[in-house]
Parts: sequence; C-alpha cells; structure tokens
Amino acid sequence: MKGDVPFDRDVVDRIVRENRVDFRSASIRDANRVVNAIEQELGVEFIRMEFGIPGLPANEIGIQAEVHALTREGIASQYAPFDGIARLKQAAATFVKKFLDLDVGPECCVPTVGNMQGGFLSQAVAGRMRKKKDTILYIDPGFSVNKSQTRFLGLKTDSIDFYETRGSKLIDRIQKRLKKGDIGGVMWNSPNNPTWIVFTDDELQEMGNLFNEYDVVAIEDVAYLCMDFRQDYSKPGEEPYPPTIARYADNAFVLISASKIFSYAGQRAAVTIISPKFIHKEYDDLREHFGSKRVLEAFVQGGMYPTTSSVPQGPQHALAAMFEAAGSGTLNFVEPLKEYGRRAALMRKAFKENGFQLVYDMDLEKPLADGFYFTVSYPGFSGGELLKELVYYGLSATTLEITGSTRLEGLRVCTSLTGEEKFEVLARRLKRFREDHPV
Amino acid sequence: MKGDVPFDRDVVDRIVRENRVDFRSASIRDANRVVNAIEQELGVEFIRMEFGIPGLPANEIGIQAEVHALTREGIASQYAPFDGIARLKQAAATFVKKFLDLDVGPECCVPTVGNMQGGFLSQAVAGRMRKKKDTILYIDPGFSVNKSQTRFLGLKTDSIDFYETRGSKLIDRIQKRLKKGDIGGVMWNSPNNPTWIVFTDDELQEMGNLFNEYDVVAIEDVAYLCMDFRQDYSKPGEEPYPPTIARYADNAFVLISASKIFSYAGQRAAVTIISPKFIHKEYDDLREHFGSKRVLEAFVQGGMYPTTSSVPQGPQHALAAMFEAAGSGTLNFVEPLKEYGRRAALMRKAFKENGFQLVYDMDLEKPLADGFYFTVSYPGFSGGELLKELVYYGLSATTLEITGSTRLEGLRVCTSLTGEEKFEVLARRLKRFREDHPV
Repeated sequence: MKGDVPFDRDVVDRIVRENRVDFRSASIRDANRVVNAIEQELGVEFIRMEFGIPGLPANEIGIQAEVHALTREGIASQYAPFDGIARLKQAAATFVKKFLDLDVGPECCVPTVGNMQGGFLSQAVAGRMRKKKDTILYIDPGFSVNKSQTRFLGLKTDSIDFYETRGSKLIDRIQKRLKKGDIGGVMWNSPNNPTWIVFTDDELQEMGNLFNEYDVVAIEDVAYLCMDFRQDYSKPGEEPYPPTIARYADNAFVLISASKIFSYAGQRAAVTIISPKFIHKEYDDLREHFGSKRVLEAFVQGGMYPTTSSVPQGPQHALAAMFEAAGSGTLNFVEPLKEYGRRAALMRKAFKENGFQLVYDMDLEKPLADGFYFTVSYPGFSGGELLKELVYYGLSATTLEITGSTRLEGLRVCTSLTGEEKFEVLARRLKRFREDHPV
Repeated sequence: MKGDVPFDRDVVDRIVRENRVDFRSASIRDANRVVNAIEQELGVEFIRMEFGIPGLPANEIGIQAEVHALTREGIASQYAPFDGIARLKQAAATFVKKFLDLDVGPECCVPTVGNMQGGFLSQAVAGRMRKKKDTILYIDPGFSVNKSQTRFLGLKTDSIDFYETRGSKLIDRIQKRLKKGDIGGVMWNSPNNPTWIVFTDDELQEMGNLFNEYDVVAIEDVAYLCMDFRQDYSKPGEEPYPPTIARYADNAFVLISASKIFSYAGQRAAVTIISPKFIHKEYDDLREHFGSKRVLEAFVQGGMYPTTSSVPQGPQHALAAMFEAAGSGTLNFVEPLKEYGRRAALMRKAFKENGFQLVYDMDLEKPLADGFYFTVSYPGFSGGELLKELVYYGLSATTLEITGSTRLEGLRVCTSLTGEEKFEVLARRLKRFREDHPV
C-alpha cells in the first residue's frame, strides 16, 4: 500500500481544515470525506476502518432475481403495493420462522427502503402513538443516524449506555427510566454496532416484560443478524436461534436488512417485522400524523406511502429470492460472513500488541464475539485526539462519541474493508504509531 | 370484455360495504381495492380509470442499464452517496438543460425514491425553514398524497382552487394569501393531475415574482414533463421548452420522475432539482430538524440520509441512462407518450356524446390538451354519487374531492389503461349509463 507513515502533518492539517472536519464530532461520512481528500492529494492509501460497508461481493442470487424480474416479469413499469410485493412478504415470514423461530404472517412483514426507512417509520409510530410518550430511549452506543431520525421527526430522545451495566443492572436502569412515563419506544441494535456485544436472551426477556408492563414499543435493529459467530446460526429451522425481543415484547418492530447479511447495501432492501399482537392495535393519537389509528395502517398508508410510496420492485425481488434460498437451505448466508470475524480477530490482536485497549471488552461475563466492529482506545488520548493522530498514520475510524457512548476515549473500528493483504500494513503502521507515542 | 352492465346492484353494494369504502372520500387505492374485489367476485372486467399508472412498457434503455450495473459494475453491495451517484447527477443536469433550458450544476440535482420522496423532503425543508412560515399552500386540484406528507410532517396547509381563476386573477388570489406571511412553500403540479391544464409561462413568471417578493419556496411537480402534446417538446436543446417556475423563482424545488415519462414507476427513480440560488442559502431554523442551516445539506444529510440513506443504485443507473439517451436525441421519449393523448381524445368524445361534461374544460382561453387525465361530471350527480353509480356499469375513477378541488361534482378519469380494444366497450357502457339516467 502506498504511503510512508506518518504523512506530512502540515499537509494533512491543511486538508482537514479545508474540509472543515472536527474529528471529535465528525460523522462517518465526514471522516470518509476527509480521508478521501488526503488519499487523493498525497497519493497515499489508508486502512479504511471508518465506514460500515460490506467488504464482500453482493449475493448473486439477489442479482439474478432482480435481472429476471426486470427483463422477464415487466416489473419496472408497475408500482409495487405500499406494503410490499406478496412474494417478499411471504419469503420474509418464512425467513424469520427459519432463522429467528418467530411465527408471523406475511401481513406483519413490510418491506422498507433499507433499515433506514424501517427505523424512521418505526420511531415515527412509536413516538407519536401517545402524545405524552414522545421520547425514544436508546440503549447506547448505537447507530448515530437513528438520532437524526428522531431529530427530523421532532421527537425527544434519551440514552442509557450499557457500558458496565449489563444484565440485571441494565434492566434496573431501564425500568427506572421507563417509570417517568414519557418513553414511547426503546431502540437498540444487536449484535451491536459499534461494540459487537449481543444482548442475551435473559436480558431481552426481562426487557420485554418491562416494555409490556410500561406499554412501550421495542425497536430492535438486527442489521447484523446471525453474525455472532460464537454460535452456529447458519442452519434454517434448527436451534440455536439468535435472541430477539420479538419473543417477549408484545409491541415490537424488528428491522432486518439485506445490506450486511447479503452484502446488498446498494439496493436498500429491508423488511420491518411488526409483531402480530401489535399490528392491529389502535391508538387515537396516531390519526394526527398518519390518518389512521391502527398501527399497521399508520406504518404503511400513513408512513410508507407519503415517504416513498413503496420500495422499488427489483430490490424486493432480490431480497425475496435471498430469503427463499436461505430459508430452504440452498444458500448458507452465514458462512461467507465469518470472514469478518476472522479479520476482527487478527485486527484486534494487532491493536492490542501495540498498546491499544478494547473499550467495550467483555460481553457480560463472556469474551466478545469477533465481527463487523470493535472499539479501541489508547492511553492518554481522547477519541477525537486519537482519531486525529491516527490519520497521520493512514488509519481511519470514527469516534464513539457520535454513537451515544459515554466512553469519550473510544473509537469504532470496522473490519469489513481490511482484507488479508492489508494486515501487514496495519500492523506496521500501528507499530510505528506506538513507537512515536510511547505509553 | 367480460360482464354485462349494469352489474347486480345488490352484490356490488355488499362488496362495497364489506370493503368499507365510502366513494366520496375513497382514495385512489381504496377505489382500486374495491374494484378488484368486484372484478374477482363477479368475474367481470372494469374499464380501469382510477389509477394513474403507466399503460406502456418500461423504457428498455433503463432496464438494460440496471442489468448492466447489477451484473457488470458490482453496484449492489455498495451504498450510493446520499446525494446520488455522479453519473445520474450529471445526466440530470444535462437533461434539464436540454428539455427545460435550465442551467443547473450536478450538485443541484438530487436523486430521490420517486417524486414521492422529492415532495416529502421539499415540503419538509420549505415548511421548516422559518418557524412562522409553516404552512404549505397548494394550488389545487392536485395529487392528494402531498397532503398526507404535510400531515406526516406536522405542517399546516391551505389551498387555492384554480377553477375559474387562472391568469391575473389567480395571481391576485395567491398574492392575497401570501400577504398573511405564514406560507413557507407553494406546491402544484403541471401538466396538472387531475385536470391536465398547464400553467402558462406568463402565470409562472408572475408567480415567481410573488414568491421572490414574499420569500416563499416553489415546489413544482413535473411528473408529466413534456406531456402537453399541443406543443412539440420532443427535441432536445430546441425550442419550445415547457414552462417551469425554475426560470423565475429564486427558491425552487422541481420534481422530475421516471415513473410516467419513462414508464418506470416500479423502480421509484426521480430527481429533485434545487435551484442554484437556493442550495447554498442558510436559514437558522433548519438546524432544529436537519442539523444544518444550509438548504442543500438540510435536504441531503438532514433529509435523505435519515429517511432512506440514498436511492437504490440500480434505479439510479436506469434513470441516468434514460436521461442520457433523451438528452443526446437517441431516445425520443415523448413520442410513445402521445398514445395517452390519443386515448384521451377518444375517451373525452365518448363521455361527451353520452351526456357527460368536462369539469375543468378550458386551459385559460385555450382548449385543454389531451393527456393522462381529464375531469368529468354528469348532471344531477355529486362526484361520490356518480362514482358509486358508474361502478355498476364497470367504470372506475376517483372523485375530485380528494384532489383538493372545490368542484365536488367531478371525477378524475385516467387514460393510461384504456387501450384501443377497450374503446368500444367504454362507449357502450357509457351509452347504457345514459339510457338508464336520462338527463
């Protein structure tokens, strides 16, 4: 890879200034932008660890299904139904039975333009169902853009960091917060971006009990479904199944996306699973913004329709075909994803050998799984300072500060783009960083 | 076509009741749903005039571009930029130069998931730029779902019906309304769904002057661009050009969609053109919901990102290829669309010969163009009554009431699905209707 480190500090500083990037608060895309600029101007290459994008090729079954739908089925001229094409709704219901052991009908499975739209509409419904419960509580750290969604929607937010408070302590903290009575929905993602912890079945059961008791909506983003490789979740219809809140909470949105599990991020294909007990419930306050008091109609006619009218037909066929192949066992979608775990193990080793520490370093009492992300810090540095310093060494990441974490010393590292050929350079650059910054 | 009219009234009434449809307020999709149910149960076929969907096959250039991008360019795994792929942004800028004679840079052209998302985000920005200007004014009749968007967004709305008030009278009415000071944006579509009038260049110039004077944002939906077939708009880079507010208003969103002009509705490919003077303007009140006070960043990072993150890659390539082919003159996209005009002329004739009247029957001093929609009434009936009665005769439409029109006697008729083979049946059914309902 091109570029001796450290790069010329003056030039890098100038480029950072010109791009008006403050590393402490820099969004993923800001970091991405300034790193692109440095690469271009200096003619160097970074180890790109800032951007959570698939590092594997898109699933071929999806591509073939889209091509077929476009060329043979005449789908391009015809609007899809707001609530999704029948094929995808059925395939999604089968998929969640086979990989989450959930019994939901096709009517509970609503395609969305990525989990982004799923999270947007789920929060909209959860935060507007009851006027007094207009706050979304995040179990953080999490995906920063979910908070841009509440900002867009004009909802309030609060946050609980699960650092040091997992298990019953976490449940206690959540309960204490729910008691105030202003929480409409609670949102998190698991396996967790950025820490890669996984909420346990016990935790989710207790959370579900709380949500039912306090009449709160669960919003669970499972963009990285089955990517806790400590377990073998690859066999359809066989135990073990990943833990999910949908087993315990009456009112739940579960967001499943093709972006990471099928490496299909570019086509924005996802499905929101709305729990069967929830879809037909009625809340008078939904009328004001959605024109209907029923949850399903609010989500679909009141939410999907006025935002994008539907999900493009081609990506719906792609996702349906991939769900079908996974559900029937023709496609083992988990196996290729293990590459991310392999990379994570090697990368974590390189970081640790060079004086870095994991910030979120345990998963309850168990060691963390290796996966798509992990979190690091370096003695004596805040997250923003560390990121700024690493940039001179051709290493990019994002701060934990933007994820809602209280651990301001931490960075999120994404493993997806660091293929085999980059390990040596990563180790060399980290070594040089350590030499220049003795602890 | 199957089915002698009138159908069995008792059976139809039961199906309508079971579907809980009130014809006066029935949405397009409600009408669609109940007509489907009647067709299925009675084994009959309707002349479908309720649904504004393309009646022509999807443009083949778009399909081929998507297939190529999916199979050869590896786009499915990679997120598109929030503000669109460079190819589409450039192609859109060229297209609006060639077909609207507008000079805008690629940065002004932001792909959206259909004009639906374009209208959603444009109204969000226009209605939230200044706290006191939180009302969207519609020049009606229009596309009913735009009002569901303001409802979702929590904005206020007002409406001016251009029936009987075109030209300077219309301008006077708009000015009177703007004087109140609470209007953030003014929205309409032209050629107009449902009446097929086209605002003239003179009207738009005066509207533009008003908008600049009162600091109001124009939102112009041109989903049916170049479909006023009284003029030949088919030649790229040659006069005449369709009238557009973008020539006159400093602050404008112009919404261009592939759905109708390229018969590509299923893939939700569209572009919002933001006027060059507008994109860099700053409004402090934008921060609250969009995190940025600049218009372009509010629309893209604050609006596109948290709603769908981007437009799926494949449809972006399709739209880019179609824009490119149209702009270079390889594709005459207007010619095949004239089929809708031909159908409209024949259908209007059949309606008129059987006692129906056009509701919106003139376009200022000129006869209406023939196109995708027209409006009808029948002596002695309200719109809801007429629609209910026509259903017995195997004829479907939607009421003008849901379009914001004050002409409650009217129906919207869509020409897109009435091919040659259906004209004779249409004429026969209308004749029977007239015989049964003598004026």
